[in-house]
Amino acid sequence: MAKIIDGKAIAKEIHGEIADEVRSLSEKHGKVPGLAVVIVGTREDTQSFVLMKRKACAEVGIKSFELGLPEDVSETEVIATVHELNANPDVHGILVQLPLPKHINEDNVLSEISIEKDVDGFHPLNIGKLAMKGREPLFMPCTPKGCLELLSRSGISIKGKKAVVLGRSNIVGLPVALLLLKAGATVTIVRFHAPDSAKIICEADIVIAAAGQAMMIKGDWLKPGAAVIDVGTIWPDSYS
Amino acid sequence: MAKIIDGKAIAKEIHGEIADEVRSLSEKHGKVPGLAVVIVGTREDTQSFVLMKRKACAEVGIKSFELGLPEDVSETEVIATVHELNANPDVHGILVQLPLPKHINEDNVLSEISIEKDVDGFHPLNIGKLAMKGREPLFMPCTPKGCLELLSRSGISIKGKKAVVLGRSNIVGLPVALLLLKAGATVTIVRFHAPDSAKIICEADIVIAAAGQAMMIKGDWLKPGAAVIDVGTIWPDSYS
Repeated sequence: MAKIIDGKAIAKEIHGEIADEVRSLSEKHGKVPGLAVVIVGTREDTQSFVLMKRKACAEVGIKSFELGLPEDVSETEVIATVHELNANPDVHGILVQLPLPKHINEDNVLSEISIEKDVDGFHPLNIGKLAMKGREPLFMPCTPKGCLELLSRSGISIKGKKAVVLGRSNIVGLPVALLLLKAGATVTIVRFHAPDSAKIICEADIVIAAAGQAMMIKGDWLKPGAAVIDVGTIWPDSYS
Repeated sequence: MAKIIDGKAIAKEIHGEIADEVRSLSEKHGKVPGLAVVIVGTREDTQSFVLMKRKACAEVGIKSFELGLPEDVSETEVIATVHELNANPDVHGILVQLPLPKHINEDNVLSEISIEKDVDGFHPLNIGKLAMKGREPLFMPCTPKGCLELLSRSGISIKGKKAVVLGRSNIVGLPVALLLLKAGATVTIVRFHAPDSAKIICEADIVIAAAGQAMMIKGDWLKPGAAVIDVGTIWPDSYS
């Protein structure tokens, strides 16, 4: 019988721990962590992500700031907003909700976020430190970190295991592969449409499906006892 | 019959191309590229690497500068040397020969090399850009780049192939895996002592052995027609 990793229960547990940390930070240092989210345009999926973040902040006591900018805002104006947030002492983390409209270069915007406030961990300096042995990033990208939390809180060890990551996006596939590697797994990174992808998956102890769509891996592809995390469908335009 | 990749012939070809580029740079802009190598102590392997670099520079017309520092030099003095080279307009590339003596923190020193002169490509910002899709590092670490040159100049395509990298050092294993991934391979990164490493290697189209010792992979482990590059024995203390 398959055992289901209860993501909602684990999330609740983590929310409780963070709420405790926020409370103690506030009592000891009189500081409340602040998270700013920059939203450009009115994409529906963006709005629902932002709503989820706002709710999560409220639950754990993090102050959230939302900066909505119109769809036709210029890159310069988005960058100016980022600079203001970099300078704002009440803001400790900055998220720029992706994807941005096509006329704005995402890399240019993300590179302007102060490295100390880059809570998404997408800055190349953070990704480099995440990749390198003996270095630690200031922040880890959230979905990859979530995958590792789900494994460790479900009692699944990583060291020495064969892990397969399906997908190699900068947001999920690549960083989760790098984290699994750092945790001592043998890691294979494969595109869904690569030849042999099913054969590679069937040999894995741990499978992270981050191919841009949910439910692409079939149950009968899996080795008995394999741990599977399906990241689902997020920002399909960011995936390969 | 196995076909041997003739590394020496390919190196000669590349030397010729670089000599042409250096000559045209010098004719058109009156600039001669300069490479500075910082050497601490008198390790024998270090001396022979430096000698090889000096010879290669001389062959292609690059001006080389060598800065020898005593074994007991302080970290502060090494960093001061790096700062001087950063500011020297005749120096376009800086190599700090690794490993450094134990009392010096390598990361502290390497992080001080100006990103525009980090020709070893070991700065985390460079590694991050090398890892990320849609980003390009200013410089690629030389051994990994050499592996890809050997493959491409031997007519071996990478896209869609199954590649296995043995070893995950910051200097070879990790960056070569990231380069193969960017070139479209399905990439597995495995430690030599991992369970199943022989089995994983026998399924690969391309094998890069970067486990810190030469000749660790046996011929009968390989799939017929597989391309193998054995990086050999370099800096054993830097490998895992």
